[in-house]
Amino acid sequence: MNSLFGNPLSVLNEGLASFADPIAARGGAVTRLEWAPPAAGDRAIGTALAQTINDPAIEAANAKAADRYLAAQPRLTGIGTAREALPGMVDRMILHAGPPVPWARMCGPMQGAIVGAILYEGWAADAARAQAMAKSGDIAFEPCHHHAAVGPMAGIISPSMPVWIVSNPVHGNHSFSNLNEGLGKVLRFGANSPEVIARLKWMAQTLAPTLQSGLKVLQDLELKPLMAQALHMGDEVHNRNVAASSLLIRRLVPALLKSSAPAADAAAAIEFIAGNDHFFLNLSMAACKAMLDATHGVAGSSMVTAMARNGVEFGIRVSGLGEKWFTAPAPVVDGLYFSGYSKANAAPDLGDSAITETAGIGGFAMAAAPAIVKFVGGTAQDALANTLAMTHITLRRNGAFTLPALDFGGTPACIDARRVVDTGILPVINTGIAHQEAGIGQIGAGVTHAPLECFSKAILQMKNQ
Amino acid sequence: MNSLFGNPLSVLNEGLASFADPIAARGGAVTRLEWAPPAAGDRAIGTALAQTINDPAIEAANAKAADRYLAAQPRLTGIGTAREALPGMVDRMILHAGPPVPWARMCGPMQGAIVGAILYEGWAADAARAQAMAKSGDIAFEPCHHHAAVGPMAGIISPSMPVWIVSNPVHGNHSFSNLNEGLGKVLRFGANSPEVIARLKWMAQTLAPTLQSGLKVLQDLELKPLMAQALHMGDEVHNRNVAASSLLIRRLVPALLKSSAPAADAAAAIEFIAGNDHFFLNLSMAACKAMLDATHGVAGSSMVTAMARNGVEFGIRVSGLGEKWFTAPAPVVDGLYFSGYSKANAAPDLGDSAITETAGIGGFAMAAAPAIVKFVGGTAQDALANTLAMTHITLRRNGAFTLPALDFGGTPACIDARRVVDTGILPVINTGIAHQEAGIGQIGAGVTHAPLECFSKAILQMKNQ
Repeated sequence: MNSLFGNPLSVLNEGLASFADPIAARGGAVTRLEWAPPAAGDRAIGTALAQTINDPAIEAANAKAADRYLAAQPRLTGIGTAREALPGMVDRMILHAGPPVPWARMCGPMQGAIVGAILYEGWAADAARAQAMAKSGDIAFEPCHHHAAVGPMAGIISPSMPVWIVSNPVHGNHSFSNLNEGLGKVLRFGANSPEVIARLKWMAQTLAPTLQSGLKVLQDLELKPLMAQALHMGDEVHNRNVAASSLLIRRLVPALLKSSAPAADAAAAIEFIAGNDHFFLNLSMAACKAMLDATHGVAGSSMVTAMARNGVEFGIRVSGLGEKWFTAPAPVVDGLYFSGYSKANAAPDLGDSAITETAGIGGFAMAAAPAIVKFVGGTAQDALANTLAMTHITLRRNGAFTLPALDFGGTPACIDARRVVDTGILPVINTGIAHQEAGIGQIGAGVTHAPLECFSKAILQMKNQ
Repeated sequence: MNSLFGNPLSVLNEGLASFADPIAARGGAVTRLEWAPPAAGDRAIGTALAQTINDPAIEAANAKAADRYLAAQPRLTGIGTAREALPGMVDRMILHAGPPVPWARMCGPMQGAIVGAILYEGWAADAARAQAMAKSGDIAFEPCHHHAAVGPMAGIISPSMPVWIVSNPVHGNHSFSNLNEGLGKVLRFGANSPEVIARLKWMAQTLAPTLQSGLKVLQDLELKPLMAQALHMGDEVHNRNVAASSLLIRRLVPALLKSSAPAADAAAAIEFIAGNDHFFLNLSMAACKAMLDATHGVAGSSMVTAMARNGVEFGIRVSGLGEKWFTAPAPVVDGLYFSGYSKANAAPDLGDSAITETAGIGGFAMAAAPAIVKFVGGTAQDALANTLAMTHITLRRNGAFTLPALDFGGTPACIDARRVVDTGILPVINTGIAHQEAGIGQIGAGVTHAPLECFSKAILQMKNQ
């Protein structure tokens, strides 16, 4: 003891800062561990959480759900039309991103995109009438997620739009997404001007059948190996898809040229795809949706199977908690804004694309994509740190998606809602930022986090079951 | 002094190990810095080196040479035929990789490739006669480098072969390389069977004119931005070219489809390119050659302007030392061998592709390409360490080629022969390994180093000037 008191103090503090403050005030060296009480100190949630930790039934259910995620093999099998392809899709229905939200509460970009979809479908002759129709209640608005589908940003899918069809033969499920329009004035950011509608019509009438001809030659395209290769080429396959899009082109083009598609259509389709670094995003999302839908509905599992935002609310679904969404206000992203824009112009977090993070890529695989920090902010070290932090809230590392910079360790995947509440480490999401008004488009990008409240609500629900 | 002797010793040793051994033997803590005497302890070379260090004329010459490297802007401007395009190329001449080497001393793959080139040119009817012709002295063998050209592995270019034409309008020079044949049985590894010759003929008769039609539509293609993008996508643009090849396809395909090339030829060309991850390598090499030729011939400069291997000797050229090659025996690469092969089967280091390392990419940019360690060996940390080590022997960081994992620092470039001899840090090279017999092909890949002797000879020559 004497020798201890004779030496300068060097203290490691885990817990309340007030333990460490007096030592520091008297000149002692203190290293403070980052620490927060479980459930952010909320007694009811903390109690509920404690009842779930190390529960053998939950562990077994999570192992089953995670195994299903790892075993899934999403394949691109074709292109269809939403009305025919999507389960439960009917006429006069429009799907949107995120959890359910009524027209009156929707954010600007989502309302703008719905007006565009009504014009595209020819249900109204102009924007004013389209808006009135949307308001009237004549159109059913439902989440993409309720129809095995996902869409980036506003995520609008109307009945006659073409959709990617992804199959997971291992578990027999299918998933869907719309096709990526490119950047600039596009429906997913709420634009609905004539050139936006014209592009959507060209995509339905020319691009989709042309791609379908190519896919017939290509036959099924395994998506996991392609995504794995893109992770070795600097993509995180959410906000950086340049490698995956290029690899897709390499696979598609020779097939397209051998297909029955008219040469001029094939050339136009190739030029359109080659001009869009984000073209693969929607396929990445559909692949993630297919892998995660295969894990949903395992009784007792606390594994997160969807994270999605509608520009008003952030919602999650949990494997063992049925179809319910656990929601919280969607955060406004503190990111890198394009010149002339700031956080004050931003719509709150929007889009189904957080399905990628739910599946262990995107922000969870940032270690694969150091170059993305130029787009979303931070340093290459931050990118590594984000991936490593996610290992604390996930059930598995995915050996099919390896990260070269982490010596080929798998990406952390299968978020456990319990671990999020217990550690306070929130799922990291790389995201684009939409202007809050319809049609202005993307105004930035950044790194954001899923709100703790969603996970806390899920844990309370688990206790009540 | 008393307090020093009273405390446990903690010693940092730079220099002879025998300084540190007695301290360690008596229980002192010793950290030994990696150290070797300059010029590996050779008195004559060390003396010559000392006379060149901090010489203002050499510093000024090196600054000029390095500035020219940084300013160069290589562009792909077309495809030609070696006989017409290459300066000094004549009939009955065959170019090869590395420094000059007579037929009798050539390694197996190079002799095999020359036999193949003679058959391809139709100068002899069979391999035995081709071999006799090669031996007879009727054919002039010269290094690609003597004709502003570069070729991977055996590096064989014969008069009627198609060549990429790269221009550097900033300095008015041109460079050239042959077209990549893909993997398997290929001329550059010494194969010369009928299918190899048939592929070369198809490349000359169909691929080259088709690509030329596409390039006419595309007009000039800037190569530095494409290489820079590939470095952000996990390529080091020497042994990993999957991103650069994919980006090239994305640029070429829409142009090809708009070109006057027959549709079937365009489709065949696209399929050939899309099937070869290494297709961009030869363009990368030509771009590096164009950048470095622009730096050659600056009087007094100790900057290395070429490193090349002919399978027998490793040679370098230095900007201020004229056309002379400074050579040493080519090392056998201690790499990862394909199943069934070992170092005993390997040809010594071969090919002009070390022009990429001379230009600051390849092994010098391994920090960009952690996934390459699966191919050449080591860990992602080793990849970072290789790039960082090269900063000690180079004059500049190239801001046009940034490395995300090193927080977008530029790749180390412009090797100073003095610093190599002074530090003993040898230029790192990622390389494929050829079987020592003609035609068996690639048997492995690895990381190797340029021999110190080349640089020592150059430094001795600098002193004598």
